[in-house]
Amino acid sequence: MTQEDEPGGAFVPGTRLRIAGRAEAPLHGLTFAAKDLFDVAGYPTGGGNHDWGRRNPVPKRHAWAVERLLDAGATLVGKTITDEVSLGLLGENAFDGTPLNPAAPDRVPGGSSSGSASAVARGLCDFALGTDTGGSVRVPASFCGLFGIRPTHGRIDLRGMMPQAPSSDTAGWLARDAEVFARVSAELLEQPIPDALPHRLVIAVDAFGFAEAEVAAALAPLLARLASLIGESREELMALPGLSAWARAQRTLQPHEGWLTFKDWIEAANPRFAFSVARNLVLASMTPQAELQWAGLMRVEARARLVHLLPPGTILCMPTTPFPAPAKGLPVSAQDLARQRLAVLSSHGGLTGVPQVSVPGAEVDGLPIGLSLVGRHGSDASLVAVARTLADEAAGGAD
Amino acid sequence: MTQEDEPGGAFVPGTRLRIAGRAEAPLHGLTFAAKDLFDVAGYPTGGGNHDWGRRNPVPKRHAWAVERLLDAGATLVGKTITDEVSLGLLGENAFDGTPLNPAAPDRVPGGSSSGSASAVARGLCDFALGTDTGGSVRVPASFCGLFGIRPTHGRIDLRGMMPQAPSSDTAGWLARDAEVFARVSAELLEQPIPDALPHRLVIAVDAFGFAEAEVAAALAPLLARLASLIGESREELMALPGLSAWARAQRTLQPHEGWLTFKDWIEAANPRFAFSVARNLVLASMTPQAELQWAGLMRVEARARLVHLLPPGTILCMPTTPFPAPAKGLPVSAQDLARQRLAVLSSHGGLTGVPQVSVPGAEVDGLPIGLSLVGRHGSDASLVAVARTLADEAAGGAD
Repeated sequence: MTQEDEPGGAFVPGTRLRIAGRAEAPLHGLTFAAKDLFDVAGYPTGGGNHDWGRRNPVPKRHAWAVERLLDAGATLVGKTITDEVSLGLLGENAFDGTPLNPAAPDRVPGGSSSGSASAVARGLCDFALGTDTGGSVRVPASFCGLFGIRPTHGRIDLRGMMPQAPSSDTAGWLARDAEVFARVSAELLEQPIPDALPHRLVIAVDAFGFAEAEVAAALAPLLARLASLIGESREELMALPGLSAWARAQRTLQPHEGWLTFKDWIEAANPRFAFSVARNLVLASMTPQAELQWAGLMRVEARARLVHLLPPGTILCMPTTPFPAPAKGLPVSAQDLARQRLAVLSSHGGLTGVPQVSVPGAEVDGLPIGLSLVGRHGSDASLVAVARTLADEAAGGAD
Repeated sequence: MTQEDEPGGAFVPGTRLRIAGRAEAPLHGLTFAAKDLFDVAGYPTGGGNHDWGRRNPVPKRHAWAVERLLDAGATLVGKTITDEVSLGLLGENAFDGTPLNPAAPDRVPGGSSSGSASAVARGLCDFALGTDTGGSVRVPASFCGLFGIRPTHGRIDLRGMMPQAPSSDTAGWLARDAEVFARVSAELLEQPIPDALPHRLVIAVDAFGFAEAEVAAALAPLLARLASLIGESREELMALPGLSAWARAQRTLQPHEGWLTFKDWIEAANPRFAFSVARNLVLASMTPQAELQWAGLMRVEARARLVHLLPPGTILCMPTTPFPAPAKGLPVSAQDLARQRLAVLSSHGGLTGVPQVSVPGAEVDGLPIGLSLVGRHGSDASLVAVARTLADEAAGGAD
């Protein structure tokens, strides 16, 4: 059994490749992995489902984000396991297994960027590309104790990335180290990370209220440091109709869009899926038009709400997930419930397109839990700056 | 690549076993295979789904039907591929492939007893055990040009056979040769095959009308011989509310019962299924109570109708399938439609429990098509007698 085939491995078997980045470039010396939704020339894009990988031609070009990172000097070392066709938040894959969460070996790593989070958390590479449609970078970042970003929707070129729900799809990345996270962010955002920080903080009381009490308590010290770093802070409701209503809208729009993405393949190939994945696609195919219309209106209102809450210079903070990583191998109905609860704290991303960075640094009973920074459209670099400064302070203050 | 692993193979890889039957017993010298729904001691019962096979303990005892045949002298030579958890009528399996239909290599073999039909049709064994809940012996018998029986519900002991929808499940068998078919039938029915034949024939005009015109035309000579063999014949409607209504009732009851059979496994294991199989289970899980109640009432009326139509001494004949074997690899929606049309001519079996024998001997454009004999409850041996006599006559008349 080779390293890539071991149970709990982060990499798709057979993809421990090595494509060297450009010499004398800013990320030279760093290694990275790419979720198996990103094209790497000469390797099949597996998408976490063997029937997808078999069906589609082997790409001849790298995805934009892969190419950008190689050009910036980083070296690609592998392709990482993903939940099937990126549908999932827990990180268990019936075809490829469950990548190890080194911070909690009996727990899931989070998904769908499960292998990317696992590879980074285990030190198998310095950072990794993931995707985030409904929470797929943020959730594993929280569960594995990593920095992770869901950029502003539309900010990162998605050419060569397997789609799921295009109106919500983003390419993000995960790192262990704040400085690496910032350097990679500067290259992929194609913008320097500023020194100046936002000066107003909104504490999303509804999101903290939805999280388990232990989570809110565990995040309190990090939140206090954030508040003192930013200066002015106030508590506000994030979603006036309820985060659950926003989540319902997103979980109406996103699966239906996913169904539209995959239905021609499904019709032609009758692919295998884990039952839970197939069921979600079946239910998505049956979404009533009136529900889709309601969800579309809710999306407009949610976007307007966040524009209102997040003027320039203001960021919002919230727990990334309402609980730390659940146990592996839960029954299907318990997995469903976990996904629904996770979606309550992550649906605003796909629904409104705002950027979000999850910052590690807290634990519940030894399990990592992330604090998230949310900003207005385009404020990605500013969120990264806050994350870096928070980490610098934690590491030893102003030296 | 060994024989059992070749594309189009009929046997589950790794199951080309040999368990000799009892010497000096009536079936000595005959070989048989068992659909991978029957327990064979020491081999996993795969059920056509790798996650089922992995999950369940390896049986320590043979299924009743396997034991009965070994005791009657037949030698078991392998376990045959089945549609996933016996849900399917076409014979394509996303895990194990599509067994070859030697009569039509570019067509499906029919299912779910696909490998059993293929193995017999290819001469890899003399006969094979299958199961028939909604048509799974009769359809492959028709598509591959074999004798096949769905016995009276409850007639054959189902111990050691993986269930699907117990109120419709039966164990049946397939053979190339009428004499072998009759000898095996006598052993499994535990009753001699009589010489006396029924003396009244009902020609199910609704069933012939539902079949493609070419099918009815192709079956006409066989039907004429049957009518002259039996003596008195008359045309009748089989299902007064329509065979489609009976099929709707069966396709309400059977999948729901299948869902009840598999739901605990699905909840615990989140197994992989081909999309079409998963979708049927999902839809079955959502069946409204009112639909189930209607279907239950329709079942009572259908049973009464067949009791009325089939007094002692009377049999009914109909096309086994409305068309010969469709092409392999149809799109999912075309597969759905094919299954629905097949069910119109096969649902009466599961709905009412009557026995049915499919007889080969006709072709449409070179593709086999079966003629079916249906009798009252318990008339299994009489139907086998008619099938044998028809075949004897075709082989050379009264000599």
